[in-house]
Amino acid sequence: MVGNNKFIAVIGGSQPSAKETRLAEAVGRELAKQGAIVVCGGLGGVMEATCKGASSEGGVTVGILPGDSRESANPYVQIPIVTGMGYARNVAVVKSAQAVIAIGGNYGTLSEISYALANGIPVIGLKTWSLSKNGKQDNSITIVQSPAEAVSKALSLAVNQ
Amino acid sequence: MVGNNKFIAVIGGSQPSAKETRLAEAVGRELAKQGAIVVCGGLGGVMEATCKGASSEGGVTVGILPGDSRESANPYVQIPIVTGMGYARNVAVVKSAQAVIAIGGNYGTLSEISYALANGIPVIGLKTWSLSKNGKQDNSITIVQSPAEAVSKALSLAVNQ
Amino acid sequence: MVGNNKFIAVIGGSQPSAKETRLAEAVGRELAKQGAIVVCGGLGGVMEATCKGASSEGGVTVGILPGDSRESANPYVQIPIVTGMGYARNVAVVKSAQAVIAIGGNYGTLSEISYALANGIPVIGLKTWSLSKNGKQDNSITIVQSPAEAVSKALSLAVNQ
Amino acid sequence: MVGNNKFIAVIGGSQPSAKETRLAEAVGRELAKQGAIVVCGGLGGVMEATCKGASSEGGVTVGILPGDSRESANPYVQIPIVTGMGYARNVAVVKSAQAVIAIGGNYGTLSEISYALANGIPVIGLKTWSLSKNGKQDNSITIVQSPAEAVSKALSLAVNQ
Repeated sequence: MVGNNKFIAVIGGSQPSAKETRLAEAVGRELAKQGAIVVCGGLGGVMEATCKGASSEGGVTVGILPGDSRESANPYVQIPIVTGMGYARNVAVVKSAQAVIAIGGNYGTLSEISYALANGIPVIGLKTWSLSKNGKQDNSITIVQSPAEAVSKALSLAVNQ
Repeated sequence: MVGNNKFIAVIGGSQPSAKETRLAEAVGRELAKQGAIVVCGGLGGVMEATCKGASSEGGVTVGILPGDSRESANPYVQIPIVTGMGYARNVAVVKSAQAVIAIGGNYGTLSEISYALANGIPVIGLKTWSLSKNGKQDNSITIVQSPAEAVSKALSLAVNQ
Repeated sequence: MVGNNKFIAVIGGSQPSAKETRLAEAVGRELAKQGAIVVCGGLGGVMEATCKGASSEGGVTVGILPGDSRESANPYVQIPIVTGMGYARNVAVVKSAQAVIAIGGNYGTLSEISYALANGIPVIGLKTWSLSKNGKQDNSITIVQSPAEAVSKALSLAVNQ
Repeated sequence: MVGNNKFIAVIGGSQPSAKETRLAEAVGRELAKQGAIVVCGGLGGVMEATCKGASSEGGVTVGILPGDSRESANPYVQIPIVTGMGYARNVAVVKSAQAVIAIGGNYGTLSEISYALANGIPVIGLKTWSLSKNGKQDNSITIVQSPAEAVSKALSLAVNQ
């Protein structure tokens, strides 16, 4: 079923704007078309829109949940992972992916971006955080302008680890 | 892909006896035939034998790994979840399942049995631990004698949570 | 403050019997008298009784909490560690200790006993679980009959790791 | 021992500049003078300098370690918490504090800043990350210019949770 398919995480907030929702759904569709498996935090908002998009193209979706019940997963999660570990599950979302696409997002998303960069996992950003330290811009996030470009970059930068 | 399929965890040691290995492979085959999705800790021994059995019947296998790399997964894991959390991942193995089948096993397996019982997730035991407290037998583990019986019990006792 | 003091975990249920509560308080007092630092899960029952006993003798108490708030700690916890990780915090309770004293307890306690044994950390048992596998008794838990004996064994068996 | 003392986390990289090291040690000294308990990740660099400063003034230091051994703690950690959970321990570092002081730092530090902000725990920044989203500056980090100011702000903003 899986074989050489790539695992790509899509991260973002649970209360996205309408535009972020459309971007997420388009990213999900494109990932599925390219044969990638979607990994996410399993809840609503960007996570749900991505899973919905992927499912509409017959893709596989994995949701790594913070709580104690699979029933908290959005309806498009096919493989719910129930961690019971709260925000600590963000580490697993990122580590289970070979590249990460960030769409919008709040501080939870920023923690996932941080974990990915700390682990050498490429981060592709669509309308998301940008970082600087001591007044100097950090360019570790690959900025893109469209869902197609996000998926293309994610697949080409994906690491094996 | 998943739909109403049940998620069943198979737990056991990484250095099983030849008999435990045969039992695990048979449990994996039977779970796949019944349409269940196998959840396990993703490494060798009982985990690998179960995934091998399930894969041979076209089943889906999820491996929730303790370490930092998907490359530690056995070759029959289709969905590797990389937690980087060491033994704490045992909680996620159990919580991601609706019933647990324990085959042999050491103290790591016993920790998973404990978590399952603490969470109201049924445990079916094949040649595994038995428990007593203050001299009184604890009968919470459903003891079975064969892989077919283990799978049948797991599917009939599986909870929705 | 700490120096060569030993860290000893005391584990047990949140709804102990009156006898277990008395044992736990006596264990806490004795640990403090011997200069050991008490590590526990930070909540009520055996955990609270142990911290109460240790505090009454001027001892130091560490509570590693499962939830999101220090306010869930019992009033005798001096150093509350807030993990937000649910049951996965049991791993940290055990790993932070050089020996573990188990008093009564349910499946959560059994998971901690399992983790300790899996990690080579000595477990001393007072009215707690006993284990067997495939009909053969497992004697890894050092059984004792009194709080004084529990503390004496814990301090003499304590590992450096 | 603890009573009404505040718990303040100090976060930062394991390979700080000489200036960051001096800042961290001064922050540790000042926290101890004010009666605060230092929480950190327990390793080297900023973590060690902070613990060294606090210890020199008789303060209490807690180190929440990512690995499997207390021996990885820096020599100034008095209460080592051994999690075995890798980066997931960053959540516990932050949640165990009532305010966080960030000094320099890399992506691990950024993940801790993110968790703190996600949980409503105040973050005080000394020569550390700054954030913007969609081109708009995020001012959630309270920027300070000196160790004394960092400690003063941390103590005045500290939350009870």
